Amino acid sequence: MSTQTEEQVAGFNVAEVEVESFDEDDELDNPTYMQQLLAAGLLISTGVDGLYGRSQVFEDVVEGISDLIGAWGEGKQVEVLRFPPAMSRQVLEESGYWANFPDQLGAVFSFCGNERSHQRLLKCLDNKEDWTEDVKPTRIVMTPVACYPVYGVMAARGPLPPGGRLVDIFSYCCRYEPSNQPERMLMFRQREFVRMGTPAQILAFRDEWIEHAKLMMRWLQLPSSIGVANDPFFGRTGKLLIDSQREQQLKFELLIPGVNPDKVTACGSFNYHRDKFSSLWKIQTDTGETAHTGCCGFGLERLALSLFKHHGFDPKVWPRGVRETLWSNKYA
Amino acid sequence: MSTQTEEQVAGFNVAEVEVESFDEDDELDNPTYMQQLLAAGLLISTGVDGLYGRSQVFEDVVEGISDLIGAWGEGKQVEVLRFPPAMSRQVLEESGYWANFPDQLGAVFSFCGNERSHQRLLKCLDNKEDWTEDVKPTRIVMTPVACYPVYGVMAARGPLPPGGRLVDIFSYCCRYEPSNQPERMLMFRQREFVRMGTPAQILAFRDEWIEHAKLMMRWLQLPSSIGVANDPFFGRTGKLLIDSQREQQLKFELLIPGVNPDKVTACGSFNYHRDKFSSLWKIQTDTGETAHTGCCGFGLERLALSLFKHHGFDPKVWPRGVRETLWSNKYA
Repeated sequence: MSTQTEEQVAGFNVAEVEVESFDEDDELDNPTYMQQLLAAGLLISTGVDGLYGRSQVFEDVVEGISDLIGAWGEGKQVEVLRFPPAMSRQVLEESGYWANFPDQLGAVFSFCGNERSHQRLLKCLDNKEDWTEDVKPTRIVMTPVACYPVYGVMAARGPLPPGGRLVDIFSYCCRYEPSNQPERMLMFRQREFVRMGTPAQILAFRDEWIEHAKLMMRWLQLPSSIGVANDPFFGRTGKLLIDSQREQQLKFELLIPGVNPDKVTACGSFNYHRDKFSSLWKIQTDTGETAHTGCCGFGLERLALSLFKHHGFDPKVWPRGVRETLWSNKYA
Repeated sequence: MSTQTEEQVAGFNVAEVEVESFDEDDELDNPTYMQQLLAAGLLISTGVDGLYGRSQVFEDVVEGISDLIGAWGEGKQVEVLRFPPAMSRQVLEESGYWANFPDQLGAVFSFCGNERSHQRLLKCLDNKEDWTEDVKPTRIVMTPVACYPVYGVMAARGPLPPGGRLVDIFSYCCRYEPSNQPERMLMFRQREFVRMGTPAQILAFRDEWIEHAKLMMRWLQLPSSIGVANDPFFGRTGKLLIDSQREQQLKFELLIPGVNPDKVTACGSFNYHRDKFSSLWKIQTDTGETAHTGCCGFGLERLALSLFKHHGFDPKVWPRGVRETLWSNKYA
């Protein structure tokens, strides 16, 4: 675990680290952060890179962070909505997800044969042959971004009320990018706020959230910065979308150093979609214009990993201010 | 919403109802329970049968139930473990899930082509042709039962301690059985306790939980009964497994009437696996014998649906005892 200096908390500091060699001695002498998390029992191996169990302590930290994010909505006109970690495939296809991020999408397939094809399935599995002949796409996919299910639901309610809408969202998400880096999990949780209304309302919402995120990072005593960012659009055409997104400053990220020794980790994002989703799903303002939308959300596992990295593996000895920010009396 | 009689609370009462006709007038005059839940905004349509958003009130009830179940572990030597809603495909295959329940399994597939095959994928989607050529099985599947990821993890730790192990588990689960019955959701949550140890330890655990479940139902003022049950093993060979499971009384269920007008709904189950999982994954007792295992778990959505059915859609006016059981001060 790194010890924390005043400089790291106040400013923004990316360690320059040489590429590690992974021989066995090195693993014992200089374990990676992932190896440390597993050895401490905070994460639990499932045999699949990127997919881990979580201990009670890890969950307490995630819950504290989620509550802290959610507290921003207190006293505001906010609707809490919760969706399961899978969503309508049709809705995700309408969003253009296959076009933009096909390599990350987890589609849910199911066996739909009879007893005879079931015998064939089992035989293929036994013989390590292709067993997918009678395994077909279902109507659901793993949710890749917590807010995706919400736009269609809001469109179905008709025009927005005069003040627009504010929705509080939380979900497990899946991105199929196997990795042994702790910050790149296959399954992770997002807590988000979604805003729908006029362009001015969305921009004000995003500005407010960026300032609030900076404040949260001071409370949590985590070094951080805000940077212009882009989504990982696929392929050569994706490059144009990346350039355009950055040029228009549609996406900002909350960047925290420490979890990955080589680069900062995006732990939150502040997005202005313009009319992308509202045109697709026909979300209108109360005056009948196409609404604009935006969302500000956080990766709960990445924030937890940052806290464990900077404050150590035992929340009982975290700085008092951090404990008071996350929990009223737990780990007191 | 049904009004509750003393008799219903005390005993067990399945309504005899004729098969409904689904013409439009009928829908308006006599909405189904599902239609009522959607109209009240407790559940939110996603366009896919069996997949729903949840309101804040619905989530408060689910959280209250989950806490109530978890409270059984207080003061006991229990380890809290949380797994994401997807698990290792290899582990699920080792469990025999493809052989026993192939029709319910949601396997996660992902696109793994290049830019050229990506163009083909998009064209097929546009033309409504088979788009699955370059979409292949990943190493994960949707978790079908919350406790499945835990056995391998425990086996990896070596022999059990002398008192065995007790684990507290919670997860979203997926069973791909599309239905418009509210009690048959594609995605739902389970809270479970898993016990590993000697046969006597498992049987004592199961007996204790059956009695505790009856007590919980009295606190929640829900009519219920306990019945011998079986898992829905697939096909003709499955019938033999069903007979054997029932004959050995390996599975009991907590049955609650009301949500489905035609039959009782299984809202919990109390399972003795004998050495099925411990032989598979090599879980041994401290004396080197093959351990036995069991699990007792509840479907949180089904319990919530039962509470809304029997006590109405507004928890603020639920009987005081029920509110005190679920929440210390919410809906007071």
